[in-house]
Amino acid sequence: MSGVVGRRLRKLDSLKKATGEAVYADDISLPRMLHAKILRSPHAHARIKKVDFARALKHPGVMGVLEGKELPGKYGIIPWTQDETALAVNKALFIGDEVAAVAAVDELAAQEALELIDVEYEVLPALVEPEAALADKANVLHEGNKHGNVTKHVDLTFGDVEAALAKSAAVVEENFFYAGSTHTPIEPHCAVAQYDGEGNLTVWSSTQIPHYVHRELSKVLGIAPARVRVIQPFLGGAFGGKSDPFSLEFVVAKLAMKLGRPVKCLFTREEVFWAHRGRHPMKMRFKVGLSKEGAIEAVDSKILIDGGAYSSFGLVTAYYSGQLLTGPYQFGTYHFDSTRVFTNKPPCGPKRGHGSVQPRFAFEVALDMAAEKLGLDPIEVRRRNFIGQNVKTVNGQQITSNGFLQALEAVEKASGWKERKGKLGYGKGLGVAGSMYISGTAYPIYPNDMPQSGIQVKLDRSGKVTIFSGASDIGQGTNSQVAYLIAEEIGCDPRDCTVVAADTDLTPVDLGAYSSRGTFMVGIACVEAGQKLWALLSQAVGEKWGVSTEQVDASWGTFRGPQVDQQMSFRDAVQLTEAKFGTLGATGSYRTEKLGGDYRGGTIGASPAYSFTAHVAEVHVDVETGQWKVQRIWAAHDCGKAINPTLVEGQIEGSVYMGFGEAAMEEMTYYPSGLHKGPSLLDYRIPTSVDTPELSAMIIESVDPKGPHGAKEAGEGPLHPVIPAISNAIYDAVGVRFTELPFYPGQLFKMLKEKKA
Amino acid sequence: MSGVVGRRLRKLDSLKKATGEAVYADDISLPRMLHAKILRSPHAHARIKKVDFARALKHPGVMGVLEGKELPGKYGIIPWTQDETALAVNKALFIGDEVAAVAAVDELAAQEALELIDVEYEVLPALVEPEAALADKANVLHEGNKHGNVTKHVDLTFGDVEAALAKSAAVVEENFFYAGSTHTPIEPHCAVAQYDGEGNLTVWSSTQIPHYVHRELSKVLGIAPARVRVIQPFLGGAFGGKSDPFSLEFVVAKLAMKLGRPVKCLFTREEVFWAHRGRHPMKMRFKVGLSKEGAIEAVDSKILIDGGAYSSFGLVTAYYSGQLLTGPYQFGTYHFDSTRVFTNKPPCGPKRGHGSVQPRFAFEVALDMAAEKLGLDPIEVRRRNFIGQNVKTVNGQQITSNGFLQALEAVEKASGWKERKGKLGYGKGLGVAGSMYISGTAYPIYPNDMPQSGIQVKLDRSGKVTIFSGASDIGQGTNSQVAYLIAEEIGCDPRDCTVVAADTDLTPVDLGAYSSRGTFMVGIACVEAGQKLWALLSQAVGEKWGVSTEQVDASWGTFRGPQVDQQMSFRDAVQLTEAKFGTLGATGSYRTEKLGGDYRGGTIGASPAYSFTAHVAEVHVDVETGQWKVQRIWAAHDCGKAINPTLVEGQIEGSVYMGFGEAAMEEMTYYPSGLHKGPSLLDYRIPTSVDTPELSAMIIESVDPKGPHGAKEAGEGPLHPVIPAISNAIYDAVGVRFTELPFYPGQLFKMLKEKKA
Repeated sequence: MSGVVGRRLRKLDSLKKATGEAVYADDISLPRMLHAKILRSPHAHARIKKVDFARALKHPGVMGVLEGKELPGKYGIIPWTQDETALAVNKALFIGDEVAAVAAVDELAAQEALELIDVEYEVLPALVEPEAALADKANVLHEGNKHGNVTKHVDLTFGDVEAALAKSAAVVEENFFYAGSTHTPIEPHCAVAQYDGEGNLTVWSSTQIPHYVHRELSKVLGIAPARVRVIQPFLGGAFGGKSDPFSLEFVVAKLAMKLGRPVKCLFTREEVFWAHRGRHPMKMRFKVGLSKEGAIEAVDSKILIDGGAYSSFGLVTAYYSGQLLTGPYQFGTYHFDSTRVFTNKPPCGPKRGHGSVQPRFAFEVALDMAAEKLGLDPIEVRRRNFIGQNVKTVNGQQITSNGFLQALEAVEKASGWKERKGKLGYGKGLGVAGSMYISGTAYPIYPNDMPQSGIQVKLDRSGKVTIFSGASDIGQGTNSQVAYLIAEEIGCDPRDCTVVAADTDLTPVDLGAYSSRGTFMVGIACVEAGQKLWALLSQAVGEKWGVSTEQVDASWGTFRGPQVDQQMSFRDAVQLTEAKFGTLGATGSYRTEKLGGDYRGGTIGASPAYSFTAHVAEVHVDVETGQWKVQRIWAAHDCGKAINPTLVEGQIEGSVYMGFGEAAMEEMTYYPSGLHKGPSLLDYRIPTSVDTPELSAMIIESVDPKGPHGAKEAGEGPLHPVIPAISNAIYDAVGVRFTELPFYPGQLFKMLKEKKA
Repeated sequence: MSGVVGRRLRKLDSLKKATGEAVYADDISLPRMLHAKILRSPHAHARIKKVDFARALKHPGVMGVLEGKELPGKYGIIPWTQDETALAVNKALFIGDEVAAVAAVDELAAQEALELIDVEYEVLPALVEPEAALADKANVLHEGNKHGNVTKHVDLTFGDVEAALAKSAAVVEENFFYAGSTHTPIEPHCAVAQYDGEGNLTVWSSTQIPHYVHRELSKVLGIAPARVRVIQPFLGGAFGGKSDPFSLEFVVAKLAMKLGRPVKCLFTREEVFWAHRGRHPMKMRFKVGLSKEGAIEAVDSKILIDGGAYSSFGLVTAYYSGQLLTGPYQFGTYHFDSTRVFTNKPPCGPKRGHGSVQPRFAFEVALDMAAEKLGLDPIEVRRRNFIGQNVKTVNGQQITSNGFLQALEAVEKASGWKERKGKLGYGKGLGVAGSMYISGTAYPIYPNDMPQSGIQVKLDRSGKVTIFSGASDIGQGTNSQVAYLIAEEIGCDPRDCTVVAADTDLTPVDLGAYSSRGTFMVGIACVEAGQKLWALLSQAVGEKWGVSTEQVDASWGTFRGPQVDQQMSFRDAVQLTEAKFGTLGATGSYRTEKLGGDYRGGTIGASPAYSFTAHVAEVHVDVETGQWKVQRIWAAHDCGKAINPTLVEGQIEGSVYMGFGEAAMEEMTYYPSGLHKGPSLLDYRIPTSVDTPELSAMIIESVDPKGPHGAKEAGEGPLHPVIPAISNAIYDAVGVRFTELPFYPGQLFKMLKEKKA
């Protein structure tokens, strides 16, 4: 109706960010505010015998201190695996683990005081490698864990995999390693707490899950949730790295309560590396069997997931590493066996494409290998295995719309695949990969029957539309999308919308920015709220004009009827409607769909809709040195419907960039002691704009029957195929395969030398 | 149901105010904020020939300037009498009128720069006295006003007054003068403006009418109202003195737009006197005729109202000076002739008890005189004339509940009137007076059919209730009342309510804190919104327990059913309800009642409900010096229903205090030039706690059929009877009457001397 959805529009807050008006957590400064710093363990595994603050408390400017036993309550994003405390109570589990905190009148005084805290440690053996942790039954990180050092083991079988492998024409069996990487958001974690005389706690935090932070603060601090308010200010990037409750949120809150003054804590860049929650390193063994026509008969994987010291989302990671692989291709049979293990390193968690980027890499490379065995074109083998629309995957996930074939065709055409594949000469190659991802999960993390997402709208007689949205805009543009969707329904100019977001006092609950749930779930809530308001607006205006509600149309701030003279501003329409119905407001919700059903593993991994992606990468290799360069990546992504194509393209580009970084250079590396080799942006390298390949983002619109205006996710799916497409392209160029990340040129040089030999 | 309404509770924000956490307008400090100062006219009436900023712009720290012609749009609270501009465009109309403004990096630099602005004036004759202004047809303040220097003339007759006077047994004819006074809020006016890169203007202002400020800013600045946001922070007193749009709001907004930096302007105390809008001086001639039984046969008044330089609410003042007198007594006939005149002095406006305090003084003294003539007891004559409930006044106003008789009886009993009246001896006396006031008006100031008041509520699964209220808490406790009323309906603990108030972006429209409309109108909106939510809550909980919705009860955060084990926290009830119905929110409105009807003068003065008050004052006079002292005032006020008795008592006490100050000492005085004699709190005296009489506030509850839980107004009505009650008590004590305010001891000494002579 309104011509807002589908249009290229600026983000509503882009100018605020460009001009510096946007207020981030660290921009908040309150009267009498103190600054907190956290002391971190120098040992990868150590029992804390004693914390002595005597010297620190004498340091000028120090106003208070905090140790673990003052906040012993455990928290964690997943209710069944809560194993973190604000500060270590008994043991420190990695180098960088939080041990004690100090609040002082400024950051420097707090930093200085950290060195005056005397901690007596009993050093324990460090378990840095997952195999060692798995094997060691005596030295358990989380004492009392009946599974030893295992966070979660998932072993699910769908069909007779062995039989299917046995009858396959081509079987590939290969080991893969996906290195750990971290998010490197520009903004480090920051939290500010204020505790007022009435016993109300307010915490501003650079979080992407204000609702869960709200819950955990209430629990750990022992304050009724109605007295806790969590506000997410503007966020300088997150990518999954801010989707756990973090120590600093509890530390500033408790210190504010103890000291009666506001307290801020801003992580240094080094501390962001300790906070981590990035991509899990995975060691994967894949067996893939294809029929001679190229049909995928069987997939069998065994995955060892290096979790780091705490659970974070690890339970989900274990499921996702298997459950999300079963599209866009039809699997004849499937088995996966994933084990997430605790190690004495910074905890891994959800990074863009959570849990499924690693097995996708392994599988898409293995599929390439199998296709080669069968003499099939890599695109053709993927096309033949297309699972289709409105089907169930082998593990029971219900796929609705599916634009994968169009995506595959788009990158095939754009890359000149048919004309160019195999004809570029030695050192130059094309590689393809596909993938599937979820648009949120049916699973609300903590069991409840309430909506996952809510919206409340107020229409003002000034023509202003205020949208209270719990959803977390982490830069992806959720706040703008919310405005577009409401504007589409009610016919206002989206620029007349004010979006109040992610403030647990002011906005309805939304579960947060994770699992690519935003556009789909809050979008449905927007449509519902907008439709309620449209019913009132169209009735009032229709009556005024003597026409039916169906004859009333509105877009971009103007209402129109069937007659030429039937025209009215949005503001006048609101006034007419308010005069008829009273103060105008409405709510909308996304109610969790009960999916699940006939497959094992509960609902983890089940999504109301799936996105699909196909990439082709063109790589040129300098065969003398092993240096390789992506000439271009063509990425076609089925997002269902692009609410704002510019934002979808931005998500595709960002995903490709991030995947490219993991393929090319990003890696969390540790000394045997468990010490990170370089927790800084000097040592941990990410691609600059100069390093970033040319990329073509293409939007495929399958118009999902369930999504808002047909929309599905776009923020994580497009990351997946980059890495295998590059590996496959390198193979196409020079005939050697990367099965381990990152694809270091030195390694390529070595492989080329070995191949020649 | 809930036991919240009627209970003595602390204001929800009292601790914030006590601890200093509350943020007032001047507490707001934004990055790069400039400070504005306003140059004021030294002439009472002058044409502005030229404003030269050359020297001022060279002053260090000055960033910009503003003159009247840059903002020529006229504004004003009443749409038909808009005669103000942000800064004088052609003429300055009083000493202190705004002429030019400057913005600088700090207040001092701005103040210094004011002295470097060169203004060329053509001085015009000053019209300081209303009689002179009325007579002068050539020297018109507002050139082009077809009524010369008259703001508004109202002449309304109800019945044959002359005939009724002719047949009256006792007729009193007397002149009265009510001096002008001002509000003296502790907080001076302050406004801060920010203009962002998207063209959105935000103004924080110490206003009690954010909605009208919103409208006028949009109009004068030429910005779409959807792009203007007005926020009222905590307010340090208002009393009607902040219910106009003020120059500083436009000045900071325009300067922020011109300079691209936030701008603040804080009035000095002297400027608060220039801004004024206080009590209109009125010269009143009253004729009152009573039958020999004491029935009021006729009331005839002629009132000359000294308006000062601008209209403000003056049109309404002219009506209120006559329309609001016609209770609590039955008038046989009534005529009033009121004329508001422009004079070259700071503009008068609405001060607590707007427009009707002055004629109430005159009438209640005249009634006392008439009673004396007839040999009737002053309480008895008032009782005999009681108008009753569910009746129409002589001028057609519909009275619903009426607790005046109970109020009269309460003060009669508490003061020991029957035993003590006439028996205290010379120099000691008792005086009585009664009054009536409105609970808001049927008149929304600018003609429209939309609600006068709106509420939007959000229920959170944490148990937190967020109430978005447009109403202006100016210290009277509206925000707390809103929480009590919602809590009463939905059974939560009111302390779990967060009230977001008076922010045009976030809250529904409420017309502001004037005409004692708050509790009544926003209260009805609260009840409506609360009932909508209760319908959902009781349905969900009832279903869970297998009982009817009527069997579900809730109070103070606990739900209960008919069985002992049927108990549930409010939080659990919300979660159950949210699971059933989705995100929980509701709106409520107060729709303007169409009153008016069979009387002339439109709806001005018509209210949905009227409050009634009776006071007895005991005064002791030192007959040697004329010094007088109020021993005690007994004030009984029919507020319909006290939502929180402590707050109602506070309103009664504050009203009595303020009326006492006007009776005893407060007066705006001017030199013949139009210069205020002492625009400071040193020269303009207000009672301190030592000066304030003992007072007994008594609540009468008539339970109005229309009010929320029966409530009516309490904030202004109780001010009215103080002044005549004191005058009548002085007469009772020493046999001389004050017919002019303030009741200076020197004047009393003079009157006593004259009486003796």
